[in-house]
Amino acid sequence: MIATELLARTAESLARIRAARPLVHNITNYVVMNSTANVLLALGASPVMAHAVEEVEEMVGIAGALVLNIGTLSPAWIEAMHRAGKAARRAGIPTILDPVGAGATRLRTRTARELLAEVAPAVVRGNASEIMALVDAGARTRGVDSSRAGEDACAAALEIARAHGCVVAITGVVDHVTDGRGWLHVSNGHALMSRVTGTGCAATAVIGAFCAVERDPFAAAAGGLVVFGIAGALAAFGDPRPGTYATRLIDALDEISPEHVVTLGRVAEESPG
Amino acid sequence: MIATELLARTAESLARIRAARPLVHNITNYVVMNSTANVLLALGASPVMAHAVEEVEEMVGIAGALVLNIGTLSPAWIEAMHRAGKAARRAGIPTILDPVGAGATRLRTRTARELLAEVAPAVVRGNASEIMALVDAGARTRGVDSSRAGEDACAAALEIARAHGCVVAITGVVDHVTDGRGWLHVSNGHALMSRVTGTGCAATAVIGAFCAVERDPFAAAAGGLVVFGIAGALAAFGDPRPGTYATRLIDALDEISPEHVVTLGRVAEESPG
Amino acid sequence: MIATELLARTAESLARIRAARPLVHNITNYVVMNSTANVLLALGASPVMAHAVEEVEEMVGIAGALVLNIGTLSPAWIEAMHRAGKAARRAGIPTILDPVGAGATRLRTRTARELLAEVAPAVVRGNASEIMALVDAGARTRGVDSSRAGEDACAAALEIARAHGCVVAITGVVDHVTDGRGWLHVSNGHALMSRVTGTGCAATAVIGAFCAVERDPFAAAAGGLVVFGIAGALAAFGDPRPGTYATRLIDALDEISPEHVVTLGRVAEESPG
Repeated sequence: MIATELLARTAESLARIRAARPLVHNITNYVVMNSTANVLLALGASPVMAHAVEEVEEMVGIAGALVLNIGTLSPAWIEAMHRAGKAARRAGIPTILDPVGAGATRLRTRTARELLAEVAPAVVRGNASEIMALVDAGARTRGVDSSRAGEDACAAALEIARAHGCVVAITGVVDHVTDGRGWLHVSNGHALMSRVTGTGCAATAVIGAFCAVERDPFAAAAGGLVVFGIAGALAAFGDPRPGTYATRLIDALDEISPEHVVTLGRVAEESPG
Repeated sequence: MIATELLARTAESLARIRAARPLVHNITNYVVMNSTANVLLALGASPVMAHAVEEVEEMVGIAGALVLNIGTLSPAWIEAMHRAGKAARRAGIPTILDPVGAGATRLRTRTARELLAEVAPAVVRGNASEIMALVDAGARTRGVDSSRAGEDACAAALEIARAHGCVVAITGVVDHVTDGRGWLHVSNGHALMSRVTGTGCAATAVIGAFCAVERDPFAAAAGGLVVFGIAGALAAFGDPRPGTYATRLIDALDEISPEHVVTLGRVAEESPG
Repeated sequence: MIATELLARTAESLARIRAARPLVHNITNYVVMNSTANVLLALGASPVMAHAVEEVEEMVGIAGALVLNIGTLSPAWIEAMHRAGKAARRAGIPTILDPVGAGATRLRTRTARELLAEVAPAVVRGNASEIMALVDAGARTRGVDSSRAGEDACAAALEIARAHGCVVAITGVVDHVTDGRGWLHVSNGHALMSRVTGTGCAATAVIGAFCAVERDPFAAAAGGLVVFGIAGALAAFGDPRPGTYATRLIDALDEISPEHVVTLGRVAEESPG
C-alpha cells in the first residue's frame, strides 16, 4: 500500500463511520470507559460497554468490532473477554486487543498473551513495553504509559504479527504499524496526548471503529492512528494545558474531516524487505 | 395538571433541590458514574454511588431517591439493585429505573423486566427501543442510544404505566411522559445531547433528584426533563463541539434558575382520552 | 516544622515529582478513577489503577505510593486493599487511606477501621464526619461530602494519629493535619472544589504523589494539600461554573510551580501543647 493511497482510503473510512455509525463493543477498563465512549461518539461511531459473561457473546453479535482492553483486570472480566473474543472470531467480527500494562504484572502479561493466542485479534495496539512483553517475559513496563519504541519493540511486533496473523501497532512519538511484512509509520499526534489518561486506550477504540468499516486491518490500524493523531495535533493548537486539551481532543475528533486526513496525514511506507 | 402549573411546580422543586441538597443514591453503570455525580452536584443535589450487596439497603435508607441503571450489568450488581429497590419500596423512597440497552441482550431485557416487577419504580425512563423492550420480547435496541419514539413506544409506555402503577418517560427529540392516563410532552433539549455519553443516564438521575423533593412522580419526571432539556439547550448556545458541550452542560445545570424553568420550559399537556 | 520551611520543602517536592514522575498505585472508586488519573498526570506523577487480588501485591511493589479509597466497595476490592496495603507495609512503601463515606454504612466504617488497623497507613485523609467515624461508631456521614470540622473531629484525628502512628488530615474550608503532636492548618482551596465530584479523592491521590518523594508524611500530607488547594484557588479565578472549573483544576495542577507554592501557600503551625 502506498502512503497516499492509505490516506485516501482512510478519508473514505472516516466518511463511512459517520454514515454508518458502527457499533463498537468495548470490554475495557474502568478508568477510560467514559472518555472512550465520548471519543467514539465524537468520531461518529456508536459505543457500547458490556462485560457480563452472561451477555457479551450476544452483544458482540450486533457489533461491528470488539475492543478488548486489559487496563483494570479481574477474573470475571478475563473470562468475558475470552468469550466475547471467541464469539467475534466465529462471527468474523474484528477484535482489537489493547494489552494495557502487559509486563507490569504477571497477571497482565499472561492475560494479554492468552487473549492474543485465543481470540486471534485483527489488531494489537500497545506502547513499546507492552508489545515487547507479549513476546519476552523479561520485559517490564513502567506503569502504563511507557513509550519508547526501538528496534526491540519492532522486532517483537514483527514476531507477533507473523505468529498470529495479525496487525501490530506500537504507538509513541511515531506510531509503527506492521502486518508482519511491511510497515506504515504514522507521525501525526502530539506530546500533550501523554498528559491525558486514556489516550492510548482511545487510539485502540478508534482503530476499532475503523476496523468496523474497513476490511483490511493494516489500513484500519494505520488509518485510525492517522485520524486520532491529526485530532491530537489539532487539539494542541494554542498550547492548552491538559484539562483543556482533553476537551479539545473530543472536539477535534468531531471536527476532523476526510479532507483533513488527506492534507494533514503523515504516513511513511516501508515495503517488505 | 396544566402545563403552566407544571412549570411553576418544577421551578419550586428546583429551588427545593438547592435548599435541601437531597441525597440521591445511584446504582449505575461504570461509564457514567463520574458524569452523573457531576450532573447531580451541578443541579444542587448530593450524589452517592454504592453497589455492595452488604451496604445498599443501609445506604438507600438515608437517601431521598434511588436510581437504578443497568448500563453495565453483572450478577452481583443485579442482586444489589433488587435489594436496594425493595428496601426503598419498604421505606417509601422513590426508585427511578433506567433500562439501558434493554432489548439489546436477553440479560438486559430480563433484568429490566424483573426490576420493574419487583421494585415498583416510581418512574421508568428510557429511549423508545428500551421502553418497547420492557413489553415486547421481539424489540431490539441498536446499541444504547436509539431514539425514535413512535406510536409503538407510546403504547408500550401506557401499558407499563398501567400495569405497574408508575410513570414512564420516553426521551428523544420530544420527551413523552405518561402516568398511564394523561401525557406531558416536553420539547426542550438539543440534538447535541446525543453526542455526549451518559446524557440519558443523567436525565434519569435528574428525575431522581426531583423525585426526592416532589411527591408526584408525574410532575417530577416531566419537571426533571424540562430542567435537563433547558440546560441542554442553553449549553448548545454558540454551537460548541461535543467536548466543550459536555462541559457547558454541567455549567448550565448550575446556572439554570427557577425563572429559566418558567420562561423557557416547553410542555404540552394531553389529557386522558 | 515552621510553616515557611514546610512551603520551601513542598516546593522542592513538587519539583521532585515532576522530575521523577513517581508511580502512584490507586485502588480507588469507580466514580473518580478517570479524574484521579488526570489529576496525577497533570501534577506530574504517573498513575496506575489495579485492583485484582491476583496482581495488586506485584503492582504496589513497583510503585512509590499506594492510595486506598473505599468510595465504591465490594468484598473482592476490600481483600485487594488489604493485600496491597500489607505488601506496601512490608516493602516500606507509604499507604494513604481515604475512608470515603465512613459513618454512612457499617460496611464502610468497618472496612475503614480494619484497613487503618491492618495496613498502617502513613496518612489518612477524610472530611470531618469520616474521620470521626473511625473512632466513634455513633457518627453518621451525610453522603460523602460532609465537611464540617470541629473540635470533635480534631480530637478524633489526634486519637487516630497517636494510636496508629500515622498522620491524619481533615479537609474542609481549612485543612487540619496532625501527626499526633502538632498541627498544620492549610487555608488554601476554594468553595468550588466541593461542587465537583472527586476533589476529596484527588486530594488524597495528590498526597500520595508527595509521599512518594517526601519521607516525612506530615510534610507530605500538608504539602500536598497546599499544592492542591492553591491549584483549586487558581482554577476559580474568573468565577467559572463547575464544569469549566473541573477542567481548569486540571490545568492549574499542570501550571502550578514551586514558586506558586512559596508565594501562595497558606499554612499555620501549631506546636505540640
